[in-house]
Amino acid sequence: MPYPTRITLNTPLDMHLHLRDGEMLHNIAQASAHTFSGAIIMPNLVPPVTTKEEVVAYRARIEEAIGDETFTPYMTLFFKPSYDRAFLESIKEEITAIKLYPAGITTNSEGGVSGFDVEDLRETLEAMSDLDIPLCVHGETNGFVMDREAEFVSIYERLAAAFPRLKIIMEHITTKESVAALDRFENLYATITVHHLFITLDDVAGGMLQPHLFCKPIAKRPEDREALLKVALAAHPKVMFGSDSAPHPREAKESCGCAAGVFTAPIALQLLTELFETHNAPLENLQKFISGNAQNIYGIMPPAKTVILEKHPFTVPESYNGVVPMYAGEEIKYTITEVSDG
Amino acid sequence: MPYPTRITLNTPLDMHLHLRDGEMLHNIAQASAHTFSGAIIMPNLVPPVTTKEEVVAYRARIEEAIGDETFTPYMTLFFKPSYDRAFLESIKEEITAIKLYPAGITTNSEGGVSGFDVEDLRETLEAMSDLDIPLCVHGETNGFVMDREAEFVSIYERLAAAFPRLKIIMEHITTKESVAALDRFENLYATITVHHLFITLDDVAGGMLQPHLFCKPIAKRPEDREALLKVALAAHPKVMFGSDSAPHPREAKESCGCAAGVFTAPIALQLLTELFETHNAPLENLQKFISGNAQNIYGIMPPAKTVILEKHPFTVPESYNGVVPMYAGEEIKYTITEVSDG
Repeated sequence: MPYPTRITLNTPLDMHLHLRDGEMLHNIAQASAHTFSGAIIMPNLVPPVTTKEEVVAYRARIEEAIGDETFTPYMTLFFKPSYDRAFLESIKEEITAIKLYPAGITTNSEGGVSGFDVEDLRETLEAMSDLDIPLCVHGETNGFVMDREAEFVSIYERLAAAFPRLKIIMEHITTKESVAALDRFENLYATITVHHLFITLDDVAGGMLQPHLFCKPIAKRPEDREALLKVALAAHPKVMFGSDSAPHPREAKESCGCAAGVFTAPIALQLLTELFETHNAPLENLQKFISGNAQNIYGIMPPAKTVILEKHPFTVPESYNGVVPMYAGEEIKYTITEVSDG
Repeated sequence: MPYPTRITLNTPLDMHLHLRDGEMLHNIAQASAHTFSGAIIMPNLVPPVTTKEEVVAYRARIEEAIGDETFTPYMTLFFKPSYDRAFLESIKEEITAIKLYPAGITTNSEGGVSGFDVEDLRETLEAMSDLDIPLCVHGETNGFVMDREAEFVSIYERLAAAFPRLKIIMEHITTKESVAALDRFENLYATITVHHLFITLDDVAGGMLQPHLFCKPIAKRPEDREALLKVALAAHPKVMFGSDSAPHPREAKESCGCAAGVFTAPIALQLLTELFETHNAPLENLQKFISGNAQNIYGIMPPAKTVILEKHPFTVPESYNGVVPMYAGEEIKYTITEVSDG
């Protein structure tokens, strides 16, 4: 069936987004807020977001930065094993999820978890289960870079088995091992980025080294990308789009010791549409992948938004307010021609 | 047995070196010529070295650049399947080996070989066998970046079986598969770089992205490094040190789309000494790895040179004439305190 040249997407959601803070927040927030109805906002600021006051204040700064765009920032808290039931009850209305980082595993994660002893985590995770607060996890060990995520799967399984009512979201999965884990535990879910659907390690380091495609988890092998594509294109009900769009200033990317993160927010929907078209996957699956599945999994009701894309080439800008996006200067197939509320 | 604090190395050889041309040649040649007795000089200039006149002229430019250092540039020719016996006979005295590049696989290799049909290569490789000219090979397919070298092993085996009298040198090997191939064919040999003995992909892309450790072949997995270490520290008689030291201007490394190559010439002997000490490997093995094995394999008689290293910290310079070396600004354990002829 030929793809339509004009495509309508409803109420897109980005279930994993870095908006940063301060000047960077102001530089990049609108890139997401214009085309998405909402996003799960990562809490790894410096220092990380760990109190109710910080959540409320960060949301206010985001709302100020997005101006009058219709966009819901779904706030998260930076996981600490010291959170007790009373604290979680007090903060429940302000947050949509809690994000767990292994200590030191990625940008601004120094204060994360360094052991995964179930008993150490029991009080917090049982309270989260009872209060129906999902746990989002950056699942990498400190092992060899190509093995870190696959090695973490056993930790996912341990947590999923120990806390069967806790919704555990494996964030930005990149491996066939994580995909396989999805179907072994009812309470495991996943987000998938747009860049991991497009690239492998070959694109990062197979030709010249490409710092703007360097991210954590690093892009893996072709068979890993195939496994991700399979569940994304089929809109597997336990997977959602989450961009992990992560802006860094150009100088932090193009230098000796480049920071991890790919900035995709302004081109994610165009690239996903191109991807689904290339594979001739049903448009209804794209709609589920970028919105429906997330609404079901998180039980959220985002504000309605309509995004219209047309199939004519769009040249990705060299930079958005100093942040170099994925595929800067390259031509992609779809252009967003209209965005409206409702 | 405790290592001596003052170590003497005799007649070091670098069996794989990029000296480039023009200004770069003048900037970096002395870094090798000062401490090494000689080196196999790679022919991948732009355009590549493919005629007797070009070999002779390039040697003259190298000799001018090294001034009065005692150093033999062992010249190579860029492999073409069109080289016939008469041509090879005419050039034999000017060269030490011929270097084969698969087309487009690394810096300045666009004119390389694109098929490995034994019959297409037969005339040239049989003439090389008869004339005892070794074939040096950059062994990578155009497959996935982590698999390219292992995939090429079947091509090495095909060539080794078809031309059993041809000395085939697997250049800058990085995988356990290449190490294993060494013992399966009498006529397969290998060079190993210093950086592949120190780093894995983790060092390139496991933390921040490190462009100065980005090279081709890319550093592989921990078990690959272990396999390389084993044969290097044991001074396996079929392996030789070859730095693959490959200078690029700083701006070509620290930019979007960084060039492949690690510049190690000025610190290679210090690092190798540190490595052998760390593993408490016999000093006589170090001597074989950096000179004796190469003399046996190639049948060369380099000019004698004595290099004395002492165990006190050396801070690697931030740059050598605009080229950033491996471990720039970091402290290494050994310092070269004396170099003398004879």
